[in-house]
Parts: sequence; C-alpha cells; structure tokens
Amino acid sequence: MREGVFISIEGGEGAGKSTQISALAAYLRARGIDVVLTREPGGTEGAEAIRNLLLGGADDRWGKAGEALLFAAARSDHVEKLIKPALAAGKWVISDRYVDSSRAYQGASLGLGDADIMTLHAIGSGGLLPQRTLVLDLPPDVAAQRLQQRDAGVSDRIGGRSSEFHAKVRAAFLQIAEQEQERVRIINADETAESVTQSLVAELSGLLPE
Amino acid sequence: MREGVFISIEGGEGAGKSTQISALAAYLRARGIDVVLTREPGGTEGAEAIRNLLLGGADDRWGKAGEALLFAAARSDHVEKLIKPALAAGKWVISDRYVDSSRAYQGASLGLGDADIMTLHAIGSGGLLPQRTLVLDLPPDVAAQRLQQRDAGVSDRIGGRSSEFHAKVRAAFLQIAEQEQERVRIINADETAESVTQSLVAELSGLLPE
Ligand SMILES: Nc1ncnc2c1ncn2[C@@H]1O[C@H](COP(=O)(O)OP(=O)(O)O)[C@@H](O)[C@H]1O
Ligand SMILES: Nc1ncnc2c1ncn2[C@@H]1O[C@H](COP(=O)(O)OP(=O)(O)O)[C@@H](O)[C@H]1O
Ligand SMILES: [Mg+2]
Ligand SMILES: [Mg+2]
Repeated sequence: MREGVFISIEGGEGAGKSTQISALAAYLRARGIDVVLTREPGGTEGAEAIRNLLLGGADDRWGKAGEALLFAAARSDHVEKLIKPALAAGKWVISDRYVDSSRAYQGASLGLGDADIMTLHAIGSGGLLPQRTLVLDLPPDVAAQRLQQRDAGVSDRIGGRSSEFHAKVRAAFLQIAEQEQERVRIINADETAESVTQSLVAELSGLLPE
Repeated sequence: MREGVFISIEGGEGAGKSTQISALAAYLRARGIDVVLTREPGGTEGAEAIRNLLLGGADDRWGKAGEALLFAAARSDHVEKLIKPALAAGKWVISDRYVDSSRAYQGASLGLGDADIMTLHAIGSGGLLPQRTLVLDLPPDVAAQRLQQRDAGVSDRIGGRSSEFHAKVRAAFLQIAEQEQERVRIINADETAESVTQSLVAELSGLLPE
C-alpha cells in the first residue's frame, strides 16, 4: 500500500486554521481521499492529557524548556500512535499545528532556539516532517478582530501572551518558510474563507492524485 | 552566601532510598544543616502532575521517547523551581532519584541510549548534576522480598516491569558509577539500615562541614 500524505496547517490564533481544515477536508473527501484530521498539542489520549497541562494555569506555570519538552512529549505520542499508523494505512493526515508551532512559539518567541527544538523533535519523533506545511498569515489586528468575535477576548495560557510575543511568532513562521521553501508555503489569510481555501489547494499541487 | 550541596540517592525499587533519606536527613539536621528533601519524578506542583501521567496507566501508555521527554520536563520544573533556589539559599537538597534514574531506566533499560538522555538533560535543566550521587545496590531477590513486605506485590507502571528490565537498571547504575567515580558511589544496601546509613555518611566526606 502507498504511504499517505502528511499536511500541517500553521499560523497564529485566529488565522483561520480550524475553518480552513474543515474546508480542505471536504475538498479532499469529495475527491475520494481518506482524510484524518488531528491537532496539536493533542490528537491522542496521552497527548490530550499533556495539552491540559500546557494550556491551563498561569502564564509562568512552566519554564521555557519545560514547555518545549512537554510539547515534544505530546508530539512523540501523537506521531507514534496516530500519525504514523494513519500514513502507513495510506490515509492523508491533516494536523492543526505541528513542530513548526514549537519552533515559532518556544524556539523563536520564548527564545529557546531553533536547534534545541529540532533536537527534541529528532529524539521524540524521529524528526518526522510533513510533506507540506501551509502557514496562514494574517496581520495581527485582523487576527485580533476575528478572535474578539469568536471568543470575546478569552484565550488560553499561550494565546493570551503579549502582542509582542505574537509578532515574533508571525515573523518566525515567515522565516521558516524562507528556509524551507519546498515544504513550507505562506498563504495570505486576509481574504474570504473560500478564496483562502483555493490558495491552499493550489499549494497542494504535486501531492494530489491526477 | 555559600551555595548549598546537592545529593541524589539512587537505586532500584525497594533498595531502601526512602528509609535512608530519612536517616540521612536526621544525621545532617543534628549537625545544624538546613536540609530540603525532595523526589523525582515530582518535587514541584508541575512535576507532580507529570508524575501522575508517568506512573499511572498501562505499561505501554507512553513510548520510550515520550516517557523520557516527560521525565525531562518534570526534572526541568523541579530544578528551576525547587533545587536551584534551595541551593542558592545555601541549603542541602537530597533528592530521591534524579537524572541517573532516567539514564538507567529510559536510557539503558528501555534502550533510548545515554546520549539522548543527557541531551534532554542539557536542554531541560542546563545539565545540572549533584555533587554526589549515592546508589543503593541490592540483589534483586532481596529487593523483591522487601517490596513484597512493603507493598504486598502492588507496584506502579514502571516498578511493575519485568525482572529482566530491573536487572538492566541495576547494571546501568553500576556502569554510571564506573564512569563517574568522583560523583557516583555504590553502596551495598544488603546490610542493616543503620549500617547502610554509616556507609552513606562515609561517602559524604569532603562535603560535610568540619
Ligand atoms: N477568511 C476569513 N474571513 C473572516 N473571518 C474568518 C475567516 N476565516 C475564519 N474566520 C473567523 O475567524 C475566527 C478564527 O478562525 P479559526 O478558524 O477559529 O482560526 P484558528 O483555528 O486559526 O484559531 C472564527 O470566528 C472564524 O469563523
Ligand atoms: N537495610 C534494610 N534492611 C531490611 N529492610 C529494609 C532496609 N532498608 C529498608 N528496608 C525495608 O525495605 C522496604 C523498601 O525500603 P524503601 O526505603 O521504601 O525503598 P525504596 O524507597 O528504595 O523503594 C521498606 O519496607 C523498608 O522498611
Ligand atoms: Mg483553531
Ligand atoms: Mg521510596
């Protein structure tokens, strides 16, 4: 059996990841593709338990290294128990966030550094990378407006960090895309949902069956 | 203020770590030393929450890398929030298990390898090592008898692993001591509790105040 395809969707909070993942799954399923949708941190029982430790509590609940280790532990479980088996069964896996979020949030914005994040990823998950990573890019003020409408200003432990923190996250995603142009594609998310979905599909060329 | 002294007590389940830590603390306190007792995994609120994830559930709940990452995350919190502040305040810290347990259990027995454990320790805790590590060494059959008496055969997720697993743990502790003779000392734990305490104190020479 042919291996499946692994896609990650990245971007800051409110960029439209959840919205676009639903639309993309519908598009792929209409073409007969068996799609598994998942998310990080989480996706498996163990990783969801770690997610609860990561996203609740006060902002200083974990140090930066502890936070990065917990994300890597959750990802290790997710890769081993969900992503790899689904790919081996020939399915497409679409993950709402993956290692590039750790690189942008813990590596760049918290300042742990990219090399340490990639070392943790090598130890925890054999360094597995998606075939394609689609980064939804949105100006901070537009993201803030969308989040105000969606959540009325309530955010989790990490989403609630300063606007300076989130500006660094955005810059980090752009830098990763610059460094890995074949895998990582930046999508302008400041368009209608339908138009963003079309851009995403266009960036999957070469991966879709004829 | 002078930095405190960091001691770890290591050894398999039933070797007498808890028993000896109490006796050692009493000995040190009688000499006017301010002692903080702690344990791994755990010692801080965050690390105790990770301990619950690690020690409960089925044996295959976590893969070997996930398990090692969770131990490293717990240790990172423990070092940052408890061990370093106590040492900075001039206290002695005695920890029931520390990184050598990760090396013996996850590195050697689960087979992740010592280099990866030490890499996780470098990222998570700046590679902090105790001034002295005392390994309580006991033949497996004696440990099994003691545990039968203490717990009537009930053990946690890791303690419940095979006797082959625990034999590898014991061999790994001996090997670490061989490699780091200044820091790590093997203590024959198959003696009366009083006699074992005397051996431990003897191995602290050079660290105790005159
Ligand atoms: N292209 C878009 N234009 C306007 N609003 C959008 C668009 N995409 C999503 N939204 C809305 O913005 C909010 C955040 O979108 P969401 O998909 O939840 O983002 P994320 O999952 O990245 O946090 C939601 O209320 C959603 O309905
Ligand atoms: N030197 C010793 N001789 C006989 N029994 C001991 C000795 N030290 C401890 N024990 C008993 O063995 C059991 C295991 O000791 P414990 O200190 O709990 O080990 P650990 O903390 O290493 O698992 C306990 O019931 C304890 O009372
Ligand atoms: Mg979402
Ligand atoms: Mg004990």
